[in-house]
Amino acid sequence: MLSKSQIKLITSLKQKKYRQQHGFFVVEGVKTIKELLRSRLELHALYTTESFNIDAKDEVLITETDLKRISFLTTPNTALAIFKIPLPKPIEFTGLIVAIDAVRDPGNLGTIIRLCDWFGVKNLVCSNETVDCFNPKVIQATMGSITRVAVNYVDLAEFLKSINLPIYGAFMDGENVYTEPLPENGVLVMGNEANGISKEVEAIITDKISIPRFGDLQATESLNVATATAILLSEFRRK
Amino acid sequence: MLSKSQIKLITSLKQKKYRQQHGFFVVEGVKTIKELLRSRLELHALYTTESFNIDAKDEVLITETDLKRISFLTTPNTALAIFKIPLPKPIEFTGLIVAIDAVRDPGNLGTIIRLCDWFGVKNLVCSNETVDCFNPKVIQATMGSITRVAVNYVDLAEFLKSINLPIYGAFMDGENVYTEPLPENGVLVMGNEANGISKEVEAIITDKISIPRFGDLQATESLNVATATAILLSEFRRK
Repeated sequence: MLSKSQIKLITSLKQKKYRQQHGFFVVEGVKTIKELLRSRLELHALYTTESFNIDAKDEVLITETDLKRISFLTTPNTALAIFKIPLPKPIEFTGLIVAIDAVRDPGNLGTIIRLCDWFGVKNLVCSNETVDCFNPKVIQATMGSITRVAVNYVDLAEFLKSINLPIYGAFMDGENVYTEPLPENGVLVMGNEANGISKEVEAIITDKISIPRFGDLQATESLNVATATAILLSEFRRK
Repeated sequence: MLSKSQIKLITSLKQKKYRQQHGFFVVEGVKTIKELLRSRLELHALYTTESFNIDAKDEVLITETDLKRISFLTTPNTALAIFKIPLPKPIEFTGLIVAIDAVRDPGNLGTIIRLCDWFGVKNLVCSNETVDCFNPKVIQATMGSITRVAVNYVDLAEFLKSINLPIYGAFMDGENVYTEPLPENGVLVMGNEANGISKEVEAIITDKISIPRFGDLQATESLNVATATAILLSEFRRK
């Protein structure tokens, strides 16, 4: 059985201000929840239609109807868990860092976190205008990678000015990434879906890079930010 | 003003069976509609809150309230158009062909169509189990690329058996794509989100390829199909 106050708490966590107020975020689906249970994250409560065989005090067995009431998904998937938002891991200034300048779509940010995980990028730095990484749609798209990539929110221009690393940025008119030498240590900046990298951040970029377009002049004018990140990370790693 | 029968027709086009029955599909947003108006596609009707200055018989000026009533989007965007579903362009057997084995998510298929457009892939062949490319969410994600990529639905195993080209498939345990020679003419097969490439199609693949994973053994077990397609198409083209 779910109490009214439990339902109220869970549904409030759709909004960033309540996530920050309570210090909790929501994860759905057995597979992702199990992955998070194995991580350093701390479980607050688990609501499930089938037992996970974990400590009984953390688990509340509920009906399908109750799950539908609290789920953020159109098709709820067996379980919903509330975890504590962890303290951000400090940024490490070695290897490749990905920096995000105001990406707004949760699916895009989630996909980028999953890509960082795949390509062994340990640090993702987001401008304060970027969508919150504990947004339920971001968590859904990361498929568990949120536990392995350190995400920090900063004043991006100030952050980039303060570090001593080459700063690569994705632009439509940059150097061909296929022929550009790419370093092991550096920052890759990806911009907003509609406007790209902001003028303020552009001024700090040391190397503008671009993914060449093939085929017709008529072709699509841009790539989605998550697919562009996939291609650029692949280029940094293959070298 | 919108008539009841117009509203009924438009909202029915969310479903594949009515798209096939009427031979129409829906496009939303000024930018994409303008791109489709410049293409070979035939406009059936345009419902808009601001005039496009096109032939008056094709355009119906409507209110924001009416647009909300017919739009498939949470935040409707000025205009909604109905176009005729074109006859599929015949498949060309030169260059690189992308083949899709039962991709279900409309956003993924739309992103793959946009990637084909960017990388100059003219032919996309989908198994009959793949989501319909005239699904409104696919159209939204293609950003106009649907006008430049020929999409055909086929019995994929039969199609692949009938052609005389190397057939590459994306697998978790394939050869490292970074070191594998990749031809100019060939087929790249991408599989379903959860199950990958089906056994039946796998038996016809001539070259299994894989995107290497970097970093921890703990890392994410797979890439999203659209981001994997981005990386593999980039590899075929950069060579």
